[in-house]
Amino acid sequence: MLTYQDVLNDIYQKIEPILNEGKVADYIPALAQVNPEQFAMSITLFDGSSYHVGCSDEKFSIQSISKVFTFTKALSIYSTDLYKRVGKEPSGNPFNSLVQLEYESGIPRNPFINAGAIVVTDTLINNYKTLDATYSEVSNFIKEISDNKNIDFDENVCSSEIKHGHRNLALANLMKSFNNLDNNVDDVVKTYFKHCSITMSTKELSRAMLFLANHGTDPITNKKFITSSQTKRINSVMLTCGHYDASGDFAYHVGLPGKSGVGGGIVAVVPNVMSIAVFSPRLNSWGNSLAGTKALEIFTTKTNLSIF
Amino acid sequence: MLTYQDVLNDIYQKIEPILNEGKVADYIPALAQVNPEQFAMSITLFDGSSYHVGCSDEKFSIQSISKVFTFTKALSIYSTDLYKRVGKEPSGNPFNSLVQLEYESGIPRNPFINAGAIVVTDTLINNYKTLDATYSEVSNFIKEISDNKNIDFDENVCSSEIKHGHRNLALANLMKSFNNLDNNVDDVVKTYFKHCSITMSTKELSRAMLFLANHGTDPITNKKFITSSQTKRINSVMLTCGHYDASGDFAYHVGLPGKSGVGGGIVAVVPNVMSIAVFSPRLNSWGNSLAGTKALEIFTTKTNLSIF
Amino acid sequence: MLTYQDVLNDIYQKIEPILNEGKVADYIPALAQVNPEQFAMSITLFDGSSYHVGCSDEKFSIQSISKVFTFTKALSIYSTDLYKRVGKEPSGNPFNSLVQLEYESGIPRNPFINAGAIVVTDTLINNYKTLDATYSEVSNFIKEISDNKNIDFDENVCSSEIKHGHRNLALANLMKSFNNLDNNVDDVVKTYFKHCSITMSTKELSRAMLFLANHGTDPITNKKFITSSQTKRINSVMLTCGHYDASGDFAYHVGLPGKSGVGGGIVAVVPNVMSIAVFSPRLNSWGNSLAGTKALEIFTTKTNLSIF
Amino acid sequence: MLTYQDVLNDIYQKIEPILNEGKVADYIPALAQVNPEQFAMSITLFDGSSYHVGCSDEKFSIQSISKVFTFTKALSIYSTDLYKRVGKEPSGNPFNSLVQLEYESGIPRNPFINAGAIVVTDTLINNYKTLDATYSEVSNFIKEISDNKNIDFDENVCSSEIKHGHRNLALANLMKSFNNLDNNVDDVVKTYFKHCSITMSTKELSRAMLFLANHGTDPITNKKFITSSQTKRINSVMLTCGHYDASGDFAYHVGLPGKSGVGGGIVAVVPNVMSIAVFSPRLNSWGNSLAGTKALEIFTTKTNLSIF
Repeated sequence: MLTYQDVLNDIYQKIEPILNEGKVADYIPALAQVNPEQFAMSITLFDGSSYHVGCSDEKFSIQSISKVFTFTKALSIYSTDLYKRVGKEPSGNPFNSLVQLEYESGIPRNPFINAGAIVVTDTLINNYKTLDATYSEVSNFIKEISDNKNIDFDENVCSSEIKHGHRNLALANLMKSFNNLDNNVDDVVKTYFKHCSITMSTKELSRAMLFLANHGTDPITNKKFITSSQTKRINSVMLTCGHYDASGDFAYHVGLPGKSGVGGGIVAVVPNVMSIAVFSPRLNSWGNSLAGTKALEIFTTKTNLSIF
Repeated sequence: MLTYQDVLNDIYQKIEPILNEGKVADYIPALAQVNPEQFAMSITLFDGSSYHVGCSDEKFSIQSISKVFTFTKALSIYSTDLYKRVGKEPSGNPFNSLVQLEYESGIPRNPFINAGAIVVTDTLINNYKTLDATYSEVSNFIKEISDNKNIDFDENVCSSEIKHGHRNLALANLMKSFNNLDNNVDDVVKTYFKHCSITMSTKELSRAMLFLANHGTDPITNKKFITSSQTKRINSVMLTCGHYDASGDFAYHVGLPGKSGVGGGIVAVVPNVMSIAVFSPRLNSWGNSLAGTKALEIFTTKTNLSIF
Repeated sequence: MLTYQDVLNDIYQKIEPILNEGKVADYIPALAQVNPEQFAMSITLFDGSSYHVGCSDEKFSIQSISKVFTFTKALSIYSTDLYKRVGKEPSGNPFNSLVQLEYESGIPRNPFINAGAIVVTDTLINNYKTLDATYSEVSNFIKEISDNKNIDFDENVCSSEIKHGHRNLALANLMKSFNNLDNNVDDVVKTYFKHCSITMSTKELSRAMLFLANHGTDPITNKKFITSSQTKRINSVMLTCGHYDASGDFAYHVGLPGKSGVGGGIVAVVPNVMSIAVFSPRLNSWGNSLAGTKALEIFTTKTNLSIF
Repeated sequence: MLTYQDVLNDIYQKIEPILNEGKVADYIPALAQVNPEQFAMSITLFDGSSYHVGCSDEKFSIQSISKVFTFTKALSIYSTDLYKRVGKEPSGNPFNSLVQLEYESGIPRNPFINAGAIVVTDTLINNYKTLDATYSEVSNFIKEISDNKNIDFDENVCSSEIKHGHRNLALANLMKSFNNLDNNVDDVVKTYFKHCSITMSTKELSRAMLFLANHGTDPITNKKFITSSQTKRINSVMLTCGHYDASGDFAYHVGLPGKSGVGGGIVAVVPNVMSIAVFSPRLNSWGNSLAGTKALEIFTTKTNLSIF
């Protein structure tokens, strides 16, 4: 019988020939400089065992994967009150569209599009009062769930994001004009970018996601972070909204709740079984890691672990 | 320990007080005449045992639930070639929006919005050549999967749909203008309405859906209708697109692949475990059965059968 | 001093080198077969004198120019009640967009986009009862204003339009679904196409438009067709909406109330002075006669007859 | 025969009963505090004679009327190159819509919607280098065309605009993200607001607009500000785009090139004859002065000075 390590090794072999396909995110120079043909994949099981292939210790910019962590934190604080300010429906439009936001009076469709994550950040600032405290708490939360003190953000990426952040400032100002942003627009957007600039390896990310595969409780440390019900909710939002305008495609081909980032990372969970992280910087036309998506598709096909 | 029958009985008790909430579909007189406060729920297991509560023998108009059957049929014929003509992404807009169709050059977002099901019907007519043969084959397919010869459509509902079908004619003509409809517009739309007008009970519907819970093979008769891979695909499209603009909400609260119809029915599957059908005519603001959705939410909460 | 004939001759010279630019309408074969490099221009003065250059006796399909005549007729019947069913604002979108129609509940922006002209045709059928009577009355009206019995439509173009009329059927069905179409959808669209298929020469068209330059009364026959106030209204709608998504551009460069058709014709009026018609089949990217627009721009520059 | 003064007096009488209709702009407190039932109307003829009724010396916030002056200035500097960055078509959507801007890649439809005027301001900053110089030059230009040194802006209104300017910041950031804004977003928007906060009376405004009625040359001082051709262009853009989503309605009912501001002012020109300004703070549902629009409609009806 194949071990998980066999499966990962086999995936790596199949993926290697396509590592030169797709295009690294280049909207900011800091991201464009990454070595484009890297690949890593890690899985973590409930007994603490983990399996890795490729550069699984290489830290990369988690970007939109941070939205899972801030959404989790905000949901744990505000519970369903959060949905007064952000929806939970697929957007059906590219991830940073202002059109839908305008037609829907400044309420973003879900917490995984940029506008939604900016609102989520705003609610966290409301709770933690200062920008520094907000970043610290999000960062501490990630340290806790990944059982790892060694988590930081990349200042170079962060300031590059801020410098080129006009579309996000447009989204934030639009929401502010609809009274759906409580704090100073620039402050909220900068804090949002700081979360996006956190760097982690696939080893760390797969470890960090484990509680979402286990009803909100880390099966290794037994720490409970959120309720079982909230966990189901987060996973369902990842499944329907986790890959922007390709969420349906990801559900169709991979069949797991997951979230991607333009840095090339994707995280996913197999409820009751394991958590997964992949990394490969070149993106497909929807802005999701091309090799990463393919690797996950092969994984669920081989292991029959799709939730469908 | 609670039996499934206990769970269903308990759901009925909890649902009864809200059977007067919501609004019966009234866009055609034939649907508006239904007794509004009916409720039924049926589940069918792999061993052939089934559990029911309420008027589970009452036949009702399956409406958009027929889209699951026509999509399955077309996918079995055309495989992934089908996606040249219809997508598999959530629509993020009300179910009959022309806006998205126009912006996306006549390619509907998925097979579960009206435009998508009309295209699917067009592909079936291409395959079966005549309108009569197309309806017969769809009808025969439903008879097969439900192991029941007694399936028919409601002529009164069908002609009422045709009489008030201008919006669907608008969709179909728009797609025709984009060369995404091969047959005569009126013919395709009439055939589509005929499928929608099929009547079934929850007992029949839960039986009919069983193959989708078991990798495409009916676990009772052992007939294989589609491949395991196609089954996962259909289930994922049900999860992300099965409830129009409330698909995210359904995934969030119920956590099962499912499909609703304006006649008040909803079908759902628990992969590897069972299939479910509910019926209650009053609809919530998104056009899905209000009591039916609530019943399914209670069901997955009580049984912990959510896929998340 | 230059005579009008000198001006027209000079325009022809300037226009000749660009008669091979642009693209003949080819959405129906019947229009695509026209000799593409024809040019004609005619002006008619209040004293009955007229000046012509090019093939000014060549009859061509007036297409959307017919919208001026049906709008005039409907306005004379229904007065401002007409605006309950069609607006008078520029559309800011391509001429056959369903998007705006959907967002604005089936009320077309103005009588010069296709949807608006279809509604106008519907109001005329309401008034004249039969399809034949409606066409006859519109046709008789054109005969009266052009003082010419010799006006007919092109059956070949008309049936070709009907055969390829799916987008207009989509518009009409959408309006029907919003209860903004009283008669049978197919009947209304066919009658609309019949009006579009009328053929006239620039000589006839410039004669026909004269009453709109003279407060609603033909200055030659002294027949009063509409009130002075209605005339101003029609001219203002021609100026703001007469050239689809290039109406602003036409106002900017030509500075006259005018209306174009995809057959290559454009009509315009200089209030209190004259009426003009041009013809050249090749169209610019907005669907308006390329050489015709340029000819009118040269005309107003040379004669200083822009209303601005 | 009626004199112009008789006409103005008569208009005032007819307008008085409706001065309590409509709603003063209240999106910023500074504008909401204005005395709501004021009315003034001024006309200026080429010989320098002028006629006034109501509070024609009362200074009010010119708001979007400033867009005429900045557009004129930018057109005189950049000529048709300006149209690389801003269009000249009606917008067919509310004046501050982001939707169209997003679909059209950050190029505003015309210089009279907010986005367009922000781009125009950006081009002026490019030319004059500093914010102070830009405001000074615009202010000096208004002093010149109005032959009046006594023009200033209202600091209270300006800082109130900035404080509530999130929607304009959204527009500006969106254009910046499309590379259609060269200068710092905050700087451009602040300068734009400063222009909007200029205060003038109807007496001053009607004087200032006179050059646009006379081919670009002030008929009193004989100073030439722009070419005859540019003047026609500006007037045509005022006619097709000067009143946001009610431009067609204004053309229809008034029939003059004009521009309104939410401060309650409207300016208009009768080419070759005169310039006009009206003021009344209560607005109709499109954001244009209700009594002002009505006064202009009565004026063109009585004097037969509509350009149509």
